[in-house]
Amino acid sequence: MLNVYLSGEIHTDWREQIIDGAQGLDITFNSPVTDHAASDDCGVAILGEEPNKYWHDHKGAMVNAIRTRKGISDADVVVVRFGDKYKQWNAAFDAGYAAALGKSVIVLHGPEHQHALKEVDAAALAVAEKPEQVVEILRYVLTGALPG
Amino acid sequence: MLNVYLSGEIHTDWREQIIDGAQGLDITFNSPVTDHAASDDCGVAILGEEPNKYWHDHKGAMVNAIRTRKGISDADVVVVRFGDKYKQWNAAFDAGYAAALGKSVIVLHGPEHQHALKEVDAAALAVAEKPEQVVEILRYVLTGALPG
Amino acid sequence: MLNVYLSGEIHTDWREQIIDGAQGLDITFNSPVTDHAASDDCGVAILGEEPNKYWHDHKGAMVNAIRTRKGISDADVVVVRFGDKYKQWNAAFDAGYAAALGKSVIVLHGPEHQHALKEVDAAALAVAEKPEQVVEILRYVLTGALPG
Amino acid sequence: MLNVYLSGEIHTDWREQIIDGAQGLDITFNSPVTDHAASDDCGVAILGEEPNKYWHDHKGAMVNAIRTRKGISDADVVVVRFGDKYKQWNAAFDAGYAAALGKSVIVLHGPEHQHALKEVDAAALAVAEKPEQVVEILRYVLTGALPG
Amino acid sequence: MLNVYLSGEIHTDWREQIIDGAQGLDITFNSPVTDHAASDDCGVAILGEEPNKYWHDHKGAMVNAIRTRKGISDADVVVVRFGDKYKQWNAAFDAGYAAALGKSVIVLHGPEHQHALKEVDAAALAVAEKPEQVVEILRYVLTGALPG
Amino acid sequence: MLNVYLSGEIHTDWREQIIDGAQGLDITFNSPVTDHAASDDCGVAILGEEPNKYWHDHKGAMVNAIRTRKGISDADVVVVRFGDKYKQWNAAFDAGYAAALGKSVIVLHGPEHQHALKEVDAAALAVAEKPEQVVEILRYVLTGALPG
Amino acid sequence: MLNVYLSGEIHTDWREQIIDGAQGLDITFNSPVTDHAASDDCGVAILGEEPNKYWHDHKGAMVNAIRTRKGISDADVVVVRFGDKYKQWNAAFDAGYAAALGKSVIVLHGPEHQHALKEVDAAALAVAEKPEQVVEILRYVLTGALPG
Amino acid sequence: MLNVYLSGEIHTDWREQIIDGAQGLDITFNSPVTDHAASDDCGVAILGEEPNKYWHDHKGAMVNAIRTRKGISDADVVVVRFGDKYKQWNAAFDAGYAAALGKSVIVLHGPEHQHALKEVDAAALAVAEKPEQVVEILRYVLTGALPG
Repeated sequence: MLNVYLSGEIHTDWREQIIDGAQGLDITFNSPVTDHAASDDCGVAILGEEPNKYWHDHKGAMVNAIRTRKGISDADVVVVRFGDKYKQWNAAFDAGYAAALGKSVIVLHGPEHQHALKEVDAAALAVAEKPEQVVEILRYVLTGALPG
Repeated sequence: MLNVYLSGEIHTDWREQIIDGAQGLDITFNSPVTDHAASDDCGVAILGEEPNKYWHDHKGAMVNAIRTRKGISDADVVVVRFGDKYKQWNAAFDAGYAAALGKSVIVLHGPEHQHALKEVDAAALAVAEKPEQVVEILRYVLTGALPG
Repeated sequence: MLNVYLSGEIHTDWREQIIDGAQGLDITFNSPVTDHAASDDCGVAILGEEPNKYWHDHKGAMVNAIRTRKGISDADVVVVRFGDKYKQWNAAFDAGYAAALGKSVIVLHGPEHQHALKEVDAAALAVAEKPEQVVEILRYVLTGALPG
Repeated sequence: MLNVYLSGEIHTDWREQIIDGAQGLDITFNSPVTDHAASDDCGVAILGEEPNKYWHDHKGAMVNAIRTRKGISDADVVVVRFGDKYKQWNAAFDAGYAAALGKSVIVLHGPEHQHALKEVDAAALAVAEKPEQVVEILRYVLTGALPG
Repeated sequence: MLNVYLSGEIHTDWREQIIDGAQGLDITFNSPVTDHAASDDCGVAILGEEPNKYWHDHKGAMVNAIRTRKGISDADVVVVRFGDKYKQWNAAFDAGYAAALGKSVIVLHGPEHQHALKEVDAAALAVAEKPEQVVEILRYVLTGALPG
Repeated sequence: MLNVYLSGEIHTDWREQIIDGAQGLDITFNSPVTDHAASDDCGVAILGEEPNKYWHDHKGAMVNAIRTRKGISDADVVVVRFGDKYKQWNAAFDAGYAAALGKSVIVLHGPEHQHALKEVDAAALAVAEKPEQVVEILRYVLTGALPG
Repeated sequence: MLNVYLSGEIHTDWREQIIDGAQGLDITFNSPVTDHAASDDCGVAILGEEPNKYWHDHKGAMVNAIRTRKGISDADVVVVRFGDKYKQWNAAFDAGYAAALGKSVIVLHGPEHQHALKEVDAAALAVAEKPEQVVEILRYVLTGALPG
Repeated sequence: MLNVYLSGEIHTDWREQIIDGAQGLDITFNSPVTDHAASDDCGVAILGEEPNKYWHDHKGAMVNAIRTRKGISDADVVVVRFGDKYKQWNAAFDAGYAAALGKSVIVLHGPEHQHALKEVDAAALAVAEKPEQVVEILRYVLTGALPG
C-alpha cells in the first residue's frame, strides 16, 4: 500500500487524472483543500473576522497547515505540481518540507519551468511533465509493470 | 506480525524459497522489482528517453529508489542476499541504509564471500548461507519454535 | 552565539546590509553562492559538460545542495528573502526544508507578496519587510535590546 | 568549516591527492584505517586470537566500525571511492549508511562502473571521476570559486 | 482519519461538546482520565499508600503520564483547553510537549487569558474560544467544508 | 489500544498472570522467547554449531535481538520484571534501551531489590511488586477505572 | 561543561543567585529576555504596530520564541522556576517542551505549588525549593562534591 | 577527538588504568560520580531528607541521572565495566541506553560473566577482559596503530 500526497496547483484537474488513472492500485491519496475560496477564508470563517488582510490570510494558512502537515507526514510519496500561473510558493515550500522529512518527492511541471525549478527537481526522485507519467510511476512502484 | 524486505540478488529463486517456506507465518514480504529489464529501463520508459547511458541509468535508479526506500523504511527485518556474480553494490548499499535506520539485518551469502563481506556481516544480527535458514530465523522470531 | 543562514534572492545587497548591521553581535552568517553564473554552471564546470540543459542545471543544483544543506542544518535561524522578480522557488523550498527541521524561520519580503507567501509566513516566527528589521530581531534575540 | 569523510578504496593515493589539493581550505578530513593488514587484524591483535577465520574477520570489522561510525556521523560530506579491484562492498555499505543519515554523498569512480553503481550514484549529490574534481567541489562549496 | 487528543481542563463538558459535534467525522479522540479523584489517587490506590503528600501526588502523576504520553504521541492534533480556575500547569505542559513533538496544536480559551497564554498560543495553529470552533476546524481539515 | 512488551525473568508465570488479568482490555502483549533452552541455542540450531561457547551464546543473542528490538520498538509500555535469581542483565539492558527510546517503563520487583535497582526505577513511570498491580495500571491507563 | 537554560519567573533575582553561586563551575547559562516590557513589546517595536492586542502579543511571543527555542535546544539542563504570582503558563510550556526533547529538567518552586505542579514535577529529575539547591545540584553533577 | 564515557563498576581502579594508558591520545573521558557514599546520598543531601529508604534512593538516582544522561549523550564510545560483585543493573541499563542511542559500546568483563552478559555483549562492538585492551582499541581507533 502506498500513501500519496498531491500538493500544489489547484486550478486544473491533474489530481483527478492521477486518482482516476490509479484506480485498482492500492493507494490512499490525500491533498490540500482545493476549493480556493474555502482555503483562503477558513481561518476567519471559523475563528472570527480580521480587519487586516495579513492576519486574515495568516489565520487561514495556519488552519490549512493542520491538514497539510498531516498529509505530508503520513505520505510515502509527495507529488508536487507546478502550473502555469501564480507564484505557487506554497508548492515549493511543501517540496522542501517533504524533502527534509525524507519523503520520496515527484515533481510535475512543464519544460518551461525546468531552470526555475532546478533546486526543487534536484531533491526529487522523478520529474514528470504529465499526470499519466505519475500514474505510471506509481503503478511501476507498486506492481513492477511498465506502460505499454 | 513481521514486515520483511528482501534485498539483493535477482537471478535465483531465493525470494520464492523464503516466501514459500514462510507460509503460515504472519509476515508481509516486500522486495525490489526483480524483472531486470524493467528495473533498468523504468526511468526512460516512463519519463522519456535519454541518449546518454548514464542518465538512462540514473532515471531508472531514482524511480526504483521510491520502491526501495518505502520497502526498507516499512521493514522490521531486511534480508540482503549476495550471489555469485556481479558487483551487487546496490545490495551492500541497502544493507548500509538499513543498518543506519536501525533495522534488523540478516545477510545471506556463501562462505566464499565471508572476507569481502565482513563489514556488512558485522552490521547484521544473523549471517545465513541458505534461504531455509532465513525461514527458520523468521519462524523462531515469530513463534519461538526451533527447526527439527 | 547564533548561526544564521541567509537564503533566497541574490540580486540586491540585503545580505550585506544584515551582516554589516549585525557587526559586534556574536553571529556566524552563511549563505548560498551568490554569484549567479557560478551557481548555474558549477556542476558542468567541475564534473563535465552536458549537452542537455536539464542535466546541466541538475548537476549544478546538486552541487549547490551540498552547501545549502550544510548551511541550513547548522543554522539556528534561517532568513529567507523574496525579491521582486523571478519565481524564487528555491527560496520557498529552503523555507519548507528549514521549517521541517524545526529551525526558526524569518521571512523577508515586501507587502505585495503577503497573500502569495501566506503559507510560508505561517511557518515563520517573524515576517519582516526590511533587512534592518532582521538585524534588530537578531540583536534583540542575542542581547534583549530593542531599537531606539 | 567542512568535515569530510573519505571512504572506500585503500590501494591508491586518492586520499592524499584530495587532502593535498584541499590545502588552505577549512576542512577536517577523516578516513578509515588504510593500513590493510592492521585493518584486517586489529580485532584479534587486541582482543585475542580466533581459530575460525570468520570470527577473526568479525572482531576486526567490529573494531573498525567504531572508527567508521564516528567518521560518518561527524561528517558533512562523505566521499566514497570505488577502485578497479575487489568487491568493495564496505564502500557501498558506507554510502548507504551515509545516505540514510542524510549526509551529502560524493561518489568517485571510473566510467566503467557507471551501470553497476547506478543505485549508489542516484543517492549522491555529485559523481566524480577524478580526485581533483572532488577538491574542486569542496573548494566551490566552501568559497564559491570555480576552477580555472 | 484524524487522531485528536483533548488535553486540559476537566470541570466542564467541553470534551463531550467536541466529540458530539464531530459525530460522523473519521476521528479517534483520546483524553486524560477526567475523574478528578481517580486521577489524583491512582498511584497510591494501585501501588501503595504514601504518608507524604508529595510522593502521593508523584506516584499518581507518573501513572497518569503513561496515558498522557501515549495519547499525545499518537495524536495528529492536540487540543489544549484552559478554563477559568486553577493553575492548569499540566495543560500548558502538554502544549509544550506536543509542540516539541511537532504536533498540530489547537488552544481553546476565553479572551481573558490571551495575554497570559501568548507563548502557548504562539505555538498553536489555531486559537479558539468555543468548542464548536474546534469541531468546525476538525470538519474543515477532514472534509474542506466550512460552517454555514 | 495499548502495545505492551513483557521483558525480563522467565522462570515464573508472571507473564501469564498479567495476560490473564488483562483479559477484556484492548492490549497486544509481546515478550521474548521464554523457552530457556530454545533461547540459548537458537543461534547454533539454525546457523550452525560453534565450538567456542562465547560464539555459541553470541549467535543466539543476536537472533533473539531481532525479536526483542521489534517488541520494544512497537511497544507503548515496557514492563521489566526482575526475579530472585541470576544476574538478569538482559532485563536491565532492555529497561535502558526502552528508556532511551522514550517508552513508558514499568518495573516489577520485590522490595529486596530496591537499592540495587534504584537507577532502573528512576527511569520508570511505575514500580510494582506484584503482577496484579501491573494489570491494575494497564486497566487504569486504558479505562480510568481504579481497583476495588 | 554544562549548558543550563533558566526558564520561568522573571520578577525575583533567582537567576542571579544561581549564576553567582555557580561561579567557578564550567557552566554556560542562558535565559529568556527578562526585561518584562521589552519582552512584551519586542514584536511591535521591531516589526510594526498592531492595533489588536492579540496580534501585538502574538508578534512578541513569536520573536521571543527564537531565543527560547535556541536556549532550550542547546541546553543539557533546563531549570524552570515557578513564583508566587501570575499564571506562568509559559514556564510550564517550556518544561513540557524540554521534557519532550529529553532534556534534564529541574523544577524550582515553593511547597505551596506541589499539588498543582505534580505533572511538571513528575517529568523532572529534581524538584528544588531554593536557588542554592539548584547550584548544589549543578556543582554535584559537574564535580561530584556535596554541600558541606 | 573522541568522547568516551566510562560506565559501571566503581570499586576498582579500571577507569584510572584506561585514562592513564590513554595519555597522549585526543580523548575526553567522562564517568559517573564514583564516590559511592556521595552517589547514594546526593539526593537527600541537597534536596532534603526522606524517611523512606525508597525515596531516599530515588532522589539520588534522579540527580545522578542528570550526569549520566549528559555523559552518554555526549559520548562517541561508551565503555561498560562489569565487576565481580553486586547486581550492577545500572551498568546494564547504561549499556541498553547507549545502544538505543546508537553509541559504540565496548563491554569490559571477565570470562566468568560471558553467558550472563550475552545480550549485552551482542549489542557491543568490542568485548574486552582488561582495561589495557580498551586503551589499545581507543589508540587503534584514533591512530590506526596496533599494540606491539
